[in-house]
Amino acid sequence: MSAIANLNIVPFVSVDHMMKLVLRIGVETFLTELAEVIEEDFRRWEVFDKTPRIASHSSDGVIELMPTSDGTLYGFKYVNGHPKNMRQGRQTVTAFGVLSDVGNGYPMLLSEMTILTALRTAATSAVAAKYLARPDARCMAVIGNGAQAEFQALAFKAICGITHLRLYDIDRSASDKCLRNLEGSGLAITLCHSSQEAVEGADIITTVTADKQCATILTDNMVGPGVHINAVGGDCPGKTELHRDILHRADIFVEYPPQTRIEGEIQQMAPDHPVTELWQVMTGTAKGRSDSRQITLFDSVGFAIEDFSALRYVRSKLAATGLFTELDLLADPDEPRDLYGMVLRSKASVG
Amino acid sequence: MSAIANLNIVPFVSVDHMMKLVLRIGVETFLTELAEVIEEDFRRWEVFDKTPRIASHSSDGVIELMPTSDGTLYGFKYVNGHPKNMRQGRQTVTAFGVLSDVGNGYPMLLSEMTILTALRTAATSAVAAKYLARPDARCMAVIGNGAQAEFQALAFKAICGITHLRLYDIDRSASDKCLRNLEGSGLAITLCHSSQEAVEGADIITTVTADKQCATILTDNMVGPGVHINAVGGDCPGKTELHRDILHRADIFVEYPPQTRIEGEIQQMAPDHPVTELWQVMTGTAKGRSDSRQITLFDSVGFAIEDFSALRYVRSKLAATGLFTELDLLADPDEPRDLYGMVLRSKASVG
Repeated sequence: MSAIANLNIVPFVSVDHMMKLVLRIGVETFLTELAEVIEEDFRRWEVFDKTPRIASHSSDGVIELMPTSDGTLYGFKYVNGHPKNMRQGRQTVTAFGVLSDVGNGYPMLLSEMTILTALRTAATSAVAAKYLARPDARCMAVIGNGAQAEFQALAFKAICGITHLRLYDIDRSASDKCLRNLEGSGLAITLCHSSQEAVEGADIITTVTADKQCATILTDNMVGPGVHINAVGGDCPGKTELHRDILHRADIFVEYPPQTRIEGEIQQMAPDHPVTELWQVMTGTAKGRSDSRQITLFDSVGFAIEDFSALRYVRSKLAATGLFTELDLLADPDEPRDLYGMVLRSKASVG
Repeated sequence: MSAIANLNIVPFVSVDHMMKLVLRIGVETFLTELAEVIEEDFRRWEVFDKTPRIASHSSDGVIELMPTSDGTLYGFKYVNGHPKNMRQGRQTVTAFGVLSDVGNGYPMLLSEMTILTALRTAATSAVAAKYLARPDARCMAVIGNGAQAEFQALAFKAICGITHLRLYDIDRSASDKCLRNLEGSGLAITLCHSSQEAVEGADIITTVTADKQCATILTDNMVGPGVHINAVGGDCPGKTELHRDILHRADIFVEYPPQTRIEGEIQQMAPDHPVTELWQVMTGTAKGRSDSRQITLFDSVGFAIEDFSALRYVRSKLAATGLFTELDLLADPDEPRDLYGMVLRSKASVG
């Protein structure tokens, strides 16, 4: 990666390069390795600079910046959320991110993060389930079969040993798409006609629907003892998926409480409703699953540190794969004080 | 710009393209037109979403995100400040920025902003001076002849009619560089041996030094009646250039008081020291210069709206100049829910 020694150059991972990177590494290996980096960063949670995301709201949606730093590297993600976009053939959520060197402030990586966010969300869910689901869990229900569903399925296969999937979506064509995309993955897949049917016999229930309003995808009677719930779709104020009664019966695990209390399923609960921070389970300072009949719930909303881990992982793959281009992003005059001279000299070189 | 209709593509203005754009338009025309856009945005100050910058501090420097929105467009700048960088041949400050569509959250422009920030800072200073300096001002002292000096000189020539420059820097080679770069600009230039000498006969005094500590570049006896002071270099906590006594004698004009009270010259003053917001002078709701003996001071720190204006201006030039490349930044599956399928299909197209 010697070309990166040019101070003006920032490596850029485009959407096309990200897709090639995922395929080159293999999606399950990518998810497994990414999960390891996420776990590594969760284990050193306390060194990170943690701020809530900086949101700019409008009537159509939200644009957010999610920065964090471990004191050596700085990362931020730009992400939008516009529910109406899908009707215009656009993604509801798109994202890109930057990783920088804290020592000199120079960006070291610019990357697409729409695909990468899907991967890190799934990897984080699977890491949480590794600590919270029953070790013998093999069957997962996935309710909501949109853009995130296959990533969740493959992460749970690779990281938690899930072998059976039970899919349900209010739109059958979404489940069909999911089935088609997972052909040849080795997962045994059952298409279901209701949420109720999907959760039958499931050890893990993943809810990942896209409704913006407070929805009740899961009601209390649908959740049996010993189940782990991976609640991914409730991720902003006014957007939830689970009935309150489930939250009362479950032990709840979260990423960053100040953010989850605003955005997660627990926005339905009292502001002091007890929750456990996932990083504490990983470091052994808090308990994860304590018995086989306990109901555990990972109330996932997505936190800046996961994006940081994802950027860090992608950057570690650049040298070996060459899957990036070089972006002339930083002005680099020979004499730092001579910025205007650099502009003038570029005239000479233009001729 | 029909190619931009591809939903995955974001126009990117590299450093090289920015230099070409400045030269194609002409630096003085660029500064003049940019100043008009800045003034336009200052005049509608109240519609903007204004937040203080989000800073991540370390022992070596700071990385900041500066977002703002007018409800239709959203912009943010990434900017670092690392004083030690110059010793390693790096820029103290580098920057890039993004302009997005609030309606769908999609980025519309990614641009280098190291050069662009220098231009917008100079254009803002000159716009302020247009309202605050004496109309007959023709001679400007520039104390501190680093990366920002030429941009200030040319903006004040183009926008305020400055014809004479008096340059001083503690490092004579910086003044020499400045003189060399401004040859042929039409400005009459005098190199001076002290700040005291530089301000003799100057109608406008621009201070734009790079010291991080509280410095006193200007003392009270150096500032005569009728002068306009354009204080650019004091722009973070602990970094000031003017003696307090000057601040007591001058009428002080600022961009965004909550930020300037932390970062500007007025960090030396009581938190309720009276200041006037520049946008109010432009809209006529506050007074600018009221007589020819008044001392006016623009305490410039740089605000997100100026970057927003700069990105808006650059974007307006893309179609006519073609000076951008297309960045494959946004994942754009044919079916928005089929993100994983897009990754799979890219395998097929790889073969």
